[in-house]
Amino acid sequence: MRATVMYGAGDVRVEDVPDARLIDPTDALVRVTRGAICGSDLWPYKSMPHDDAGRRMGHEFIGIVEAVGTDVQTIKTGDLVVSPFLWSDGTCVFCSEGLQSECLHGGRYGFEDVDGGQGEAVRVPQADGTLVVLPVGEDDALMPSLLTLSDVMGTGHHAAVAARVAPGNSVAVVGDGAVGLCGVIAAKRLGAEQIILLGTNPDRIALGREFGATDKVGERGDEAVERVKELTGGLGTHSVLECVGLEQAVVTALEIARPGGAIGRVGVPEHDTTPTSIAFWKNASMAGGPAPVRAYIDELLPDVLEGRIEPGRVFDRVVDLDGVPEGYRAMNDRESIKVLVKP
Amino acid sequence: MRATVMYGAGDVRVEDVPDARLIDPTDALVRVTRGAICGSDLWPYKSMPHDDAGRRMGHEFIGIVEAVGTDVQTIKTGDLVVSPFLWSDGTCVFCSEGLQSECLHGGRYGFEDVDGGQGEAVRVPQADGTLVVLPVGEDDALMPSLLTLSDVMGTGHHAAVAARVAPGNSVAVVGDGAVGLCGVIAAKRLGAEQIILLGTNPDRIALGREFGATDKVGERGDEAVERVKELTGGLGTHSVLECVGLEQAVVTALEIARPGGAIGRVGVPEHDTTPTSIAFWKNASMAGGPAPVRAYIDELLPDVLEGRIEPGRVFDRVVDLDGVPEGYRAMNDRESIKVLVKP
Repeated sequence: MRATVMYGAGDVRVEDVPDARLIDPTDALVRVTRGAICGSDLWPYKSMPHDDAGRRMGHEFIGIVEAVGTDVQTIKTGDLVVSPFLWSDGTCVFCSEGLQSECLHGGRYGFEDVDGGQGEAVRVPQADGTLVVLPVGEDDALMPSLLTLSDVMGTGHHAAVAARVAPGNSVAVVGDGAVGLCGVIAAKRLGAEQIILLGTNPDRIALGREFGATDKVGERGDEAVERVKELTGGLGTHSVLECVGLEQAVVTALEIARPGGAIGRVGVPEHDTTPTSIAFWKNASMAGGPAPVRAYIDELLPDVLEGRIEPGRVFDRVVDLDGVPEGYRAMNDRESIKVLVKP
Repeated sequence: MRATVMYGAGDVRVEDVPDARLIDPTDALVRVTRGAICGSDLWPYKSMPHDDAGRRMGHEFIGIVEAVGTDVQTIKTGDLVVSPFLWSDGTCVFCSEGLQSECLHGGRYGFEDVDGGQGEAVRVPQADGTLVVLPVGEDDALMPSLLTLSDVMGTGHHAAVAARVAPGNSVAVVGDGAVGLCGVIAAKRLGAEQIILLGTNPDRIALGREFGATDKVGERGDEAVERVKELTGGLGTHSVLECVGLEQAVVTALEIARPGGAIGRVGVPEHDTTPTSIAFWKNASMAGGPAPVRAYIDELLPDVLEGRIEPGRVFDRVVDLDGVPEGYRAMNDRESIKVLVKP
């Protein structure tokens, strides 16, 4: 079969790889009908040292189940399913608490014998715990929005939950990428009254406004902090969604939180350390990490199916498998917010 | 009147200062009947550069109201009152939310025209918002425990709240100082099932066990992390109360939190930065800061009055004003957990 392999920074190829196949009795074999390129795929695209073995890419996908292992109980051949960006057993202590991202028997796509999602098919471990059946046809018009439940919409929602967004709150969203834009949707959905989007790209800001952003701040650093303070009576916002991960964005997020406020972090951290004393002295909390997207699919799916939220609008380009390398380039050059892959 | 003044590291003197007096119409003048030396007073005691002007010390006290300003409504001459370690107006947006430590019109004792608590009397700004009347006599046997409501008991409670201690939880308390020991009381009071106290001093550990600690870990660094993991089935604890502030203690606190767990920080941070990626990758939250003790007095006072908690046991030495410099030395040398001052 054909799949995406990264060999180093800027070196993404689509090539023949061994066919995906069942290995464990808890596996499902899924033919991918929709995949995506993630902002986090751009980290290795910018910096991965050359590796002759290559690395299989992609962790967001929807597809048709073509076969299941003998222990799989709830997922059936022919089901249209969406996968979270991590697989999880659904039964361990963390899965039971809704923190499937910490599953004791879970893992990541594209490593060891598990395929990546930017290809024709994927072996999905722990199929019963991982996959969610979608009650629509494989070419339903809702596909882009349903696909965001794999990662970006759940991740934006996680930022909002970690930032304790609540009805009537003021919220700042740091970052106008796909996750930040989904963070705007999540903040609006949870009842935020004021949603300040920090970003510089006019098209993305425009989409953010359609999603519910009430204000935009195009400045960076100290000027951005000043602008947010101006917009919030000098206090800062109750909640801050940090959707970038770069040092400056994290510092800005800490600075613009109101005393007693909450910062929800989902941007992959550029640095291991953070100037947390900024938060300490004003009693602001920091939470977040890799989103337990599996838990959030149950919560968000009805809103997608009924059209109350349209996170699929973050996809502004569609490619086939051959177009994946160009998709990486376009996202990396910020020509595209997010690329959908139709194998 | 006589009061404590620090002129530099190790240089604490008790000397004549101008009498405390009413200045603003919202002030109360309080004659101190009980004061205390705080672990945070040891920071300048270790490191303050020499200052000819000196710095007035002390922020924990109980006393009798001797006079009130014309705008004071609820506090009366003759009242026995306890003061939180910060003064606050009780009416601003943050006070209304129970975050009096962020009061827009509040401040610290010992700065500008406000006296310190290690002296004969204190001008208390914003008396109505700050002071809480105690329904006992000034020499009641409960004085030591009531005095902890000024700071350490409220601060230990804040760590437990920030660490989201809940019934049945496993909790680790990092630090066997007065705040850590009050953290044990707070964790027990909030229903924690397992309370692991990290500390090395046998007397303090013994008191911690009486307060409710179920396990002790005397190791430090990686060995401490390993021991806590052993005691928690390999997972770490749901809640961690960081009551030290030194770099190594903060790192240990981050390491021993269970995935999805919560770290509550009240130790004054030694460093501005923290290796937060440890928390990020396991979705642990960090919260805490200067405790809104004023809010917690209302919650904790009944338990002290009815003897359900006895945080006053952290005081293991009593001095008069002349004994204050020796009290600093004893605490700094870890001969004493906490010193009560009886002017």
